[in-house]
Amino acid sequence: MVVKLTYFAMSGLGDPIRLLLTFCKMEFEDIRIGRKEWEKLKPTLKLPHLPMLEVDGKTYFQGYAICRYLARKAGLNGSSEEEGLAIDATVDTLMDMIKKTVLDYYQPDSEERSKCLKASLEVTIPFYLNVFEKQLEENNGYFVAGKLTWADIVVLTLGTYLCGIFKVDILADFPKLKEHRQKISELPVIKEWLEKRPADPEDYRLL
Amino acid sequence: MVVKLTYFAMSGLGDPIRLLLTFCKMEFEDIRIGRKEWEKLKPTLKLPHLPMLEVDGKTYFQGYAICRYLARKAGLNGSSEEEGLAIDATVDTLMDMIKKTVLDYYQPDSEERSKCLKASLEVTIPFYLNVFEKQLEENNGYFVAGKLTWADIVVLTLGTYLCGIFKVDILADFPKLKEHRQKISELPVIKEWLEKRPADPEDYRLL
Repeated sequence: MVVKLTYFAMSGLGDPIRLLLTFCKMEFEDIRIGRKEWEKLKPTLKLPHLPMLEVDGKTYFQGYAICRYLARKAGLNGSSEEEGLAIDATVDTLMDMIKKTVLDYYQPDSEERSKCLKASLEVTIPFYLNVFEKQLEENNGYFVAGKLTWADIVVLTLGTYLCGIFKVDILADFPKLKEHRQKISELPVIKEWLEKRPADPEDYRLL
Repeated sequence: MVVKLTYFAMSGLGDPIRLLLTFCKMEFEDIRIGRKEWEKLKPTLKLPHLPMLEVDGKTYFQGYAICRYLARKAGLNGSSEEEGLAIDATVDTLMDMIKKTVLDYYQPDSEERSKCLKASLEVTIPFYLNVFEKQLEENNGYFVAGKLTWADIVVLTLGTYLCGIFKVDILADFPKLKEHRQKISELPVIKEWLEKRPADPEDYRLL
């Protein structure tokens, strides 16, 4: 199987995929592109966004769909249809939070941006993190069924990314989520991967 | 299995689920609520949105996650992991189109709204429908692998919903998509269900 991942030179939606590929023990080409390469590549693609996964010459878009595919291969998609549903719903809820907050971060008007960021940090993010905190409580420290699934991996990588964007430890008041981050990031495969991965550029907005 | 679906008294994100439940031959309680009931129900829920599916007393949110769960039960999720990925990616792309256009429809400012609607009808919708048209061409008249999957059902129900919102046949210039709508809506299970389902209220913005 020849596998290539194309994404920007940053974590964002790329890291959950890179980590899941590592979990699957799939060799892959990690193509990280800059702004100029993206401007050239974009008009040639079926859809105007990344990540893009190539498997044996066939290309696939949509980051979470790609994660779910890899999670199935890695045995991280739960062990019943109901667990699969609970995992998907968790990831979709995380995605809701990210869409509602990261979009604010990319607002062009700086006054509008700081107003939105304030609302993100004071209202939107605490609301969702409370939902997740309760979920960890009900599932013995994991998101679904008391065991590792791809929901844990997506929350770990995207949570870290959000902390980087907001320059705040958004998990400070959420002990279960902090404990979860610690526990998941110390799993051997993940620990090794986190130590090796390239750092994000300082200014995310360049890409 | 005791199954209850709670959604607004309209098609929107509810109809793909209702139709997939019918495909699974699962008996379910189709709870359709109005604005006043929603105001009472909302603060009691884990997440402030519908649809919500209850399976044997456990509740699940997130409409597309629920569709995927039912699609697996109905045998409509493809027959390989790659097909599953292609289906998920199609649905996520449809969701991108809907989010970019329906959100405009709900703009409070009426001048802003008509500007956004114009852009939706002239730019965003034709862009995505072109992508889908090509996909139908490459997959023998279906979205994935030349056979019926839940991507076809979601596109059918949400496509019809969009036509209702915009009061325009958005598929007019897309012969493959028109043929697809015709073919899918004439499948016996779907045809029977379409004839029986309640009509949407005229003013969607009430809910």
